[in-house]
Amino acid sequence: MGAATLFFFLSRSQVAPAYRTALTITGLVTLIACYHYFRIFNSWEAAYSVTGDVVKPTGVAFNDAYRYVDWLLTVPLLLVELILVMRLSPEETASKATKLGILAALMVALGYPGEISSTLSGRWIWWVLAMIPFLIIVYDLFIGLRNSIGSQPPAARGLVSAARWVTVISWSFYPIVYIFPMFGLTGGTATVSVQVGYTIADIVAKAAFGVLIFLIAARKSAAEAGVKDVKPAYA
Amino acid sequence: MGAATLFFFLSRSQVAPAYRTALTITGLVTLIACYHYFRIFNSWEAAYSVTGDVVKPTGVAFNDAYRYVDWLLTVPLLLVELILVMRLSPEETASKATKLGILAALMVALGYPGEISSTLSGRWIWWVLAMIPFLIIVYDLFIGLRNSIGSQPPAARGLVSAARWVTVISWSFYPIVYIFPMFGLTGGTATVSVQVGYTIADIVAKAAFGVLIFLIAARKSAAEAGVKDVKPAYA
Repeated sequence: MGAATLFFFLSRSQVAPAYRTALTITGLVTLIACYHYFRIFNSWEAAYSVTGDVVKPTGVAFNDAYRYVDWLLTVPLLLVELILVMRLSPEETASKATKLGILAALMVALGYPGEISSTLSGRWIWWVLAMIPFLIIVYDLFIGLRNSIGSQPPAARGLVSAARWVTVISWSFYPIVYIFPMFGLTGGTATVSVQVGYTIADIVAKAAFGVLIFLIAARKSAAEAGVKDVKPAYA
Repeated sequence: MGAATLFFFLSRSQVAPAYRTALTITGLVTLIACYHYFRIFNSWEAAYSVTGDVVKPTGVAFNDAYRYVDWLLTVPLLLVELILVMRLSPEETASKATKLGILAALMVALGYPGEISSTLSGRWIWWVLAMIPFLIIVYDLFIGLRNSIGSQPPAARGLVSAARWVTVISWSFYPIVYIFPMFGLTGGTATVSVQVGYTIADIVAKAAFGVLIFLIAARKSAAEAGVKDVKPAYA
């Protein structure tokens, strides 16, 4: 996440000014994630002790709130970076960013009570509630991006379509990982599976997705500068 | 706060040179806040221990001074960033920044003795004293900004008006949070409510307000560059 942050910040100079804020936000997402993964790392180390092959809880609770505070900040920003790289009108940019940002924050806030619930039924109830804004966002993005593909420069169309699929697939990891404990995973296996699952989803949804945003910004910059044979500045 | 700082520093290149100092100051405000929130975090961790569901004071006092030292530096700077983005004459900029800066420092200094007072009557007395510079500043800003709206480019007027309201509303959080303990909140509930209240107020008054300053600077830069269809560099 830290390396991705530096890549996005340093790459701002490779794209046209119109796309620099998209890359700034992309870097902020991985920076915020980098910070919270340090906190998660420290909390995990404090919560479990390893002696030889034996892993034991120390009595200090592992704090899952770091992940949710991270998502509360980064998920709305992920949507903003995608909207900015589409380069819609200022009005559309503002209205889409506000609507999707609020839905994303609501989704994360509804997921947290279930994550820390001690019962599986509590976990299910909050999962269902969080799925409502989740499905609205994914539908809105999937359809919204499809409609805007036609207005993108031909060289960027394939990438915008890829961004659409990466969003839908990587975002779907989260609700699937969330319900791991409901499918017979218990104890340490459930705890570790959920943490590993969320981490993989975060790397795809934030760092890998960010690279796509950079590629789209670079292709569109080249296309808008009137470069015929689109060979962007990074290649 | 750290992410906001990087956003403001990186966004300097997106606005005209006349507005870059405003963004520099905006980033300094969130940077100073970021530093003090680390201090507050560490002081909080040292002051309370958590075992299972039980939270106990460790005997080490939580140090509220970090917040007041932060405000002593950031509140005058917040006023300076707002004055700079208005782009008044050099004389008006200097006189307004000096007057409002001194009043802001006085307001924070008068609030601190009440915050650490062990009696509610002590808290009330210093609250009343701090409210005097507070009301002068809010009045001055609210009226001062209203008069200058007419001289702003049309594309920025709505945002300047929004900045006016965000200032008044977010600043009003602080004296309301301050008197939480006077309305029947006691013990841990009072302590936590005051800290959460100040934190939310800080995020709105520093980070969210800073984004408004950036948007005003970007719109005014585009308008002054003679861009007819104002489509700022971030969109």
